[in-house]
Amino acid sequence: MAWDKGFEAALNPKAIAIVGVSSKRREWGAYGFIDCLERLHFEGRIYPVNPKATEIQGRKTYPNLVSIPEHVDLVIVSVPAPVVPGVLEDCIAAGAKNVHIFTAGFEETGEAEGKELGEKVKEIARRGGLRVIGPNCMGLYVPAARISTLFESLAESGPVAFISQSGTLAGNYNRYAGAFGFRFSKVFSFGNAYVLDSTDFLEYLADDPETEVICMYLEGVKDGGRLVKLVREINRTKPVILWKGGLTDYGAQAVASHTGSLAGADAVWDAFFKQTGATRGGSLEELSDVTQGFLHIGRPPGRRVAVVGGGGGSSVATADACAQEGLEVPRLTPETRRQLGEFITLAGNSINNPLDIWGVMYDANSLQRVLKLVAADPLIDVVIVEYNPDMFEGLKRGQWQKLTQCLLDFNHENRTKKPMMVISRSWGDDSKVEAQQRKFQIRLTEGGVAVYPTLARGSRALAKLIQYYEFQDRASS
Amino acid sequence: MAWDKGFEAALNPKAIAIVGVSSKRREWGAYGFIDCLERLHFEGRIYPVNPKATEIQGRKTYPNLVSIPEHVDLVIVSVPAPVVPGVLEDCIAAGAKNVHIFTAGFEETGEAEGKELGEKVKEIARRGGLRVIGPNCMGLYVPAARISTLFESLAESGPVAFISQSGTLAGNYNRYAGAFGFRFSKVFSFGNAYVLDSTDFLEYLADDPETEVICMYLEGVKDGGRLVKLVREINRTKPVILWKGGLTDYGAQAVASHTGSLAGADAVWDAFFKQTGATRGGSLEELSDVTQGFLHIGRPPGRRVAVVGGGGGSSVATADACAQEGLEVPRLTPETRRQLGEFITLAGNSINNPLDIWGVMYDANSLQRVLKLVAADPLIDVVIVEYNPDMFEGLKRGQWQKLTQCLLDFNHENRTKKPMMVISRSWGDDSKVEAQQRKFQIRLTEGGVAVYPTLARGSRALAKLIQYYEFQDRASS
Repeated sequence: MAWDKGFEAALNPKAIAIVGVSSKRREWGAYGFIDCLERLHFEGRIYPVNPKATEIQGRKTYPNLVSIPEHVDLVIVSVPAPVVPGVLEDCIAAGAKNVHIFTAGFEETGEAEGKELGEKVKEIARRGGLRVIGPNCMGLYVPAARISTLFESLAESGPVAFISQSGTLAGNYNRYAGAFGFRFSKVFSFGNAYVLDSTDFLEYLADDPETEVICMYLEGVKDGGRLVKLVREINRTKPVILWKGGLTDYGAQAVASHTGSLAGADAVWDAFFKQTGATRGGSLEELSDVTQGFLHIGRPPGRRVAVVGGGGGSSVATADACAQEGLEVPRLTPETRRQLGEFITLAGNSINNPLDIWGVMYDANSLQRVLKLVAADPLIDVVIVEYNPDMFEGLKRGQWQKLTQCLLDFNHENRTKKPMMVISRSWGDDSKVEAQQRKFQIRLTEGGVAVYPTLARGSRALAKLIQYYEFQDRASS
Repeated sequence: MAWDKGFEAALNPKAIAIVGVSSKRREWGAYGFIDCLERLHFEGRIYPVNPKATEIQGRKTYPNLVSIPEHVDLVIVSVPAPVVPGVLEDCIAAGAKNVHIFTAGFEETGEAEGKELGEKVKEIARRGGLRVIGPNCMGLYVPAARISTLFESLAESGPVAFISQSGTLAGNYNRYAGAFGFRFSKVFSFGNAYVLDSTDFLEYLADDPETEVICMYLEGVKDGGRLVKLVREINRTKPVILWKGGLTDYGAQAVASHTGSLAGADAVWDAFFKQTGATRGGSLEELSDVTQGFLHIGRPPGRRVAVVGGGGGSSVATADACAQEGLEVPRLTPETRRQLGEFITLAGNSINNPLDIWGVMYDANSLQRVLKLVAADPLIDVVIVEYNPDMFEGLKRGQWQKLTQCLLDFNHENRTKKPMMVISRSWGDDSKVEAQQRKFQIRLTEGGVAVYPTLARGSRALAKLIQYYEFQDRASS
């Protein structure tokens, strides 16, 4: 099936019907969806549907879809599973074809009753030409259209799309990515995929001008061939980062209990990544790490890194982590070392690479000098700066601001030639240090700097970027 | 060399001399050490040494070690490297044999001058029979003796020892472990290891009644045979968890710049772990994760886990993570499933394993019922509870307390039969949720529950515990 343009009205709806708003207020389900829309200041009309009430909490309700006075662009179904078929018949009668089924309780229960219900839902959808997202999912989050069903959704748009077979992961990723300063264009949580599947959303995103990077969490796929073809094509211009759940036997069993999908063998997915050049992720953190890399670092000129940080043991761990990801940590040129030696004493510091120079890192002028020298070194492609906020507890606010600005300026000036990443985390539970570190991280990420909590994660993301661009070069040569 | 009992006076000193207290107050070095001792309410005498002053900031100072009116149990040397040999001659003259050399700037600089200085220091130490810890290290942290050189040290003692060749990592581990609720017996940061090496501290800790678990960060070792022998022996009763830094080529180079050690080949260390049964760590997080396991979980009865959590996609990730670590996630018995089905609806939940039951997890009574049923299942050895605090944002404080108590009670009752671990983290940056999650985590860890931020880390720790006890069984059979 090709992308059905009819569904696009659901991505920018003027009217939404929510079926299953009970007269008793509950946080989850239909009421929660109304809350979400209101929090995002949705500008269209919301039509709650409840056959037993005419008004709920001051809002006019409608007994069914047919009684709604205008055409609705999206129906959100939040009724018990046995009631879903009836609601879908109503959708057909009302001519409402875009349907998000939130309701769970189909084949994923493993019970005969759920399977039968699922078959019935599929049959009705087919018969009525319904464009169903779900069932058993959180549906759509489109900040530009001010629609969401996720509690944690932010109002601003961004360049990242997420296609997720899990609603929980969609929600968690939203929170997590938000904390790392990036924003979403579209999030599709599509659960059991009765009609619309990941490939449909991919096809849409291929031409979506808002979307620059595509993240995916998949449990199964109906048309593997189409997935390969689409990802290979799209990945050339919009990097696709995919986490495949259920690759172990126990994971595959959990997939069956979750979205009723067939997980597929490990070898099949290995081949998929080899053929498409898609970037492999194994957790939300990995999706986020690589996404940050694509957004803020782009194409690294090579794999030779300089690490500027503090603490000898950390330097060893740092060098090990880089080497384990296939990065190189070369000795700086004698000339760079000579110039660094002019203002850095050797005792307690090291100007080998990794540079262990906490003694000067709290001073913005020295830091700037170091960064310039390191970036000018012809043996270095990427500059990694490690900032342990615990070591700088005593710093005044003004000093922190200067350091942050120094990093932002360096990134701005060097981004296209010698990209930078910052590693920063607090080891303790001092809430003041944590708040300081959070502020530092947010200012950097919002200023376009990639920030990672550990060197292991940062260097893995960098290695994946390198791998991505190498694949593209091979594919186009 | 065998453990020199003479050094034990340094672990519980009545008098400490600090050489190199400048008249200008600086945060780092000698002044910082005085601050640390005062913060821990050290009850002995502190003698600052400075040849050019008689009083610094209201404290009487001494021109040299010989002029101090009593025998000192520990000398902390914080003078520039070229001055160190003279101070050591003073130590000999004063009969002060326990010496912590904080100063760096020896062979790790890679310069001829530093190497020569190092040789000189070694020669003097040998000649005078000085028990030197260092140089280029943070020395000793012994909470029971109220001594520390680490800013981040806590006053309470605990069962964990840390032998670290890196001072930065010693400090970071202190902060980190503190946040996970465990406390230290002794921390040795020993840098370039001119006299005392990791094996000396190990020998001491073998008989230290305060120490139950030993963590190590090593860059090099002088007597490999002695290390193997000691670790194999000690590890039988006190688990040894070791992180070897510098196993990659670049890491080995960084080791040379850090403590001037020879890092040793990967294969040698593989053999070390095989022969000793020591647990391998690769980061502070891994040291901490396994330590928590030894302290709170102990010997798992087997590798079959039940995972109680919420969110379908998370369940898949969970099952994958467990399977990747060689854990089993079996289906529960029909009888357990029947009993769970009595109060958990199947729609939107799953009582397969992993159990996806967020719908009931916010209610302490339901949670208790689930935990009891799962623990009673004969197919299950360990119970893993996943708590995503973001999902329970709306919970009242009283409800959180009940949930926490429910977990503490379950752990208390079942620990020896069916141990439990809790997975808990917040995905977002909402400071209220984070504070709530931190409180939850601290109450649990201080109550004796192992808490991990991700299932991947928890399941890896569990796998390492199982491996440890299997080795012990084989070794003793």
